[in-house]
Amino acid sequence: MSGRLIGVGVGPGDPGLLTLNAIDALKQADIVAHFAKAGNASNARAIAAAHFKPGVEELPLLYPVTTEIPKEDAAYREALRAFYDSAAASIAKHLDAGRVVAVIAEGDPLFYGSYMHLHVRLVSRYPTEVIAGVTGMSGCWSAIGAPIAQGDDVFTVLPATLPEYELERRLADVNAAVVMKIGRHLAKVRRALDRAGRLDRAIYVERGTMANASVMKLTDKLDGCAPYFAMVLVPGWEARP
Amino acid sequence: MSGRLIGVGVGPGDPGLLTLNAIDALKQADIVAHFAKAGNASNARAIAAAHFKPGVEELPLLYPVTTEIPKEDAAYREALRAFYDSAAASIAKHLDAGRVVAVIAEGDPLFYGSYMHLHVRLVSRYPTEVIAGVTGMSGCWSAIGAPIAQGDDVFTVLPATLPEYELERRLADVNAAVVMKIGRHLAKVRRALDRAGRLDRAIYVERGTMANASVMKLTDKLDGCAPYFAMVLVPGWEARP
Repeated sequence: MSGRLIGVGVGPGDPGLLTLNAIDALKQADIVAHFAKAGNASNARAIAAAHFKPGVEELPLLYPVTTEIPKEDAAYREALRAFYDSAAASIAKHLDAGRVVAVIAEGDPLFYGSYMHLHVRLVSRYPTEVIAGVTGMSGCWSAIGAPIAQGDDVFTVLPATLPEYELERRLADVNAAVVMKIGRHLAKVRRALDRAGRLDRAIYVERGTMANASVMKLTDKLDGCAPYFAMVLVPGWEARP
Repeated sequence: MSGRLIGVGVGPGDPGLLTLNAIDALKQADIVAHFAKAGNASNARAIAAAHFKPGVEELPLLYPVTTEIPKEDAAYREALRAFYDSAAASIAKHLDAGRVVAVIAEGDPLFYGSYMHLHVRLVSRYPTEVIAGVTGMSGCWSAIGAPIAQGDDVFTVLPATLPEYELERRLADVNAAVVMKIGRHLAKVRRALDRAGRLDRAIYVERGTMANASVMKLTDKLDGCAPYFAMVLVPGWEARP
C-alpha cells in the first residue's frame, strides 16, 4: 500500500496556464512539495497555491546553495547531490505511508527542472506520474506574439552559461533559438548574437507571462542588468511566405 | 467596434492538458476555427470540443494540399499562401463584425503551428491574444517519464525532413534532441542517429499522450512504418549526478 509521486508542471507564471490535469493532481495530493532557495518564497507555490486542498501538508525543499559556490566546484555538486538525496528520502517516507505526493514545478517538470532529480531517485520504487506543463519559453513568445519556429526550422535552446565562442557558433547555425538563464551573461550573449549576425532579431524578455513583464529588442536593452530567469528569443521562420 | 482574435493552444492530445486560459477563451469565442486536411476531422477540435459554447459557430479551415505536391514546389507554396490569405480573410469578416474568433491549435500555437500564418496576416489590424499550450514534445517525454534536458544541456528540435548528413552533424553536436515529423524519414533518422553515436539513447514515440500510445527504444522499432506525427526523443542529462 505505497503512495504515488506526481511531478506537476504548473506553467510559466500566469496561474491561468495551469492545466486541468495539474489542478486535478493538486486535488488528490496529501502533500505538496516545492523547491525554493532558502529564505525565498517558491515561485511554483505562488502559481498553484489557490488549488491546494484545504489543510494540505506542504513540504518545502530548500536549496542549500545556488550561486554561492561556483557550479564547476566539486563542493557544489556534492552539496546538491546530498540535498536531492535527502529530499527524495523525505518524500519516500510519505510514499511508504501510502500518501500522494505532488511535487510542483515551474514550467514543464522534465525540461530543465529540478523535479527530475527526485524522479530518477524514486521512479524505480514507487508509482510515478508526470504532468507536462507549458514551458517558460512558450509563455514568453506567446505573451509577445512572436512566432518562434515553423516548417523545417531548426530550433535550439542554449544556456547563457556556455562559452562565448560556443554561443556564437551555435547561434549562427540555427534558424531559431532561445538563450536561457541570462543573468550576468547578458553582455556576452549580446556579443555572440552580434557576431552570429542575429542581434537584430533578438528579443529580451523578463517575467514574460507576469503583469510586470519587461520586453524589448535586445538592441534597446542598454543596461547590463538581467535577472537569472530572463531569456532572449531569436525567432526563426525567415522564409515566411 | 472590431472583434478579437485568440490563438488558443490546446496541448498535445490529452484534453486534461488544456489550460484554464484556453477553456476561458473557448467560453468567450463566438467562432471557433480549426485546421484540418480536407476529409479529415480536426485533432484540435477533438481535444477541445467539450468546452465549446453551446451552439458556437465553427469555421473549419481545410488545407488544399498536404503531401500531394512536393514541398519544394512553387505550386505548393502558392497553394498554401492562397489558402492562408483566404482563411485570414474569412476570419477578418467576423472580426469586422465585432466577434471573438478563437483559432484552436494543437500543442503551442507559435511553435511550428499553422496558427502563426493567420496571426501575421491579422495582428496589425485587430486585437490579438495568444494562449500558450503544452507542446507535443513535452507531452511525449512526460508520458514516458524521460527527463529530456538539464543544467547546461544544449537542446535542439530537428525536422526529420533535413538531409541525412545535416541530421547526423546536428545530432552529434547537442546534448538532447527531438526529431519531429518522422513519417517516411524513419530509416534515414535511424542511420543518422547511429552514425552520430546517439542511437542507443533514442526513444520512438507515436501518439504520446493518447490512450493508444506506442513507445519503444528506436533500436526495437523493427519495421519502417511511422506516421507523420511520430517523434524520436534523444534525452540529454548525461552528466546526471
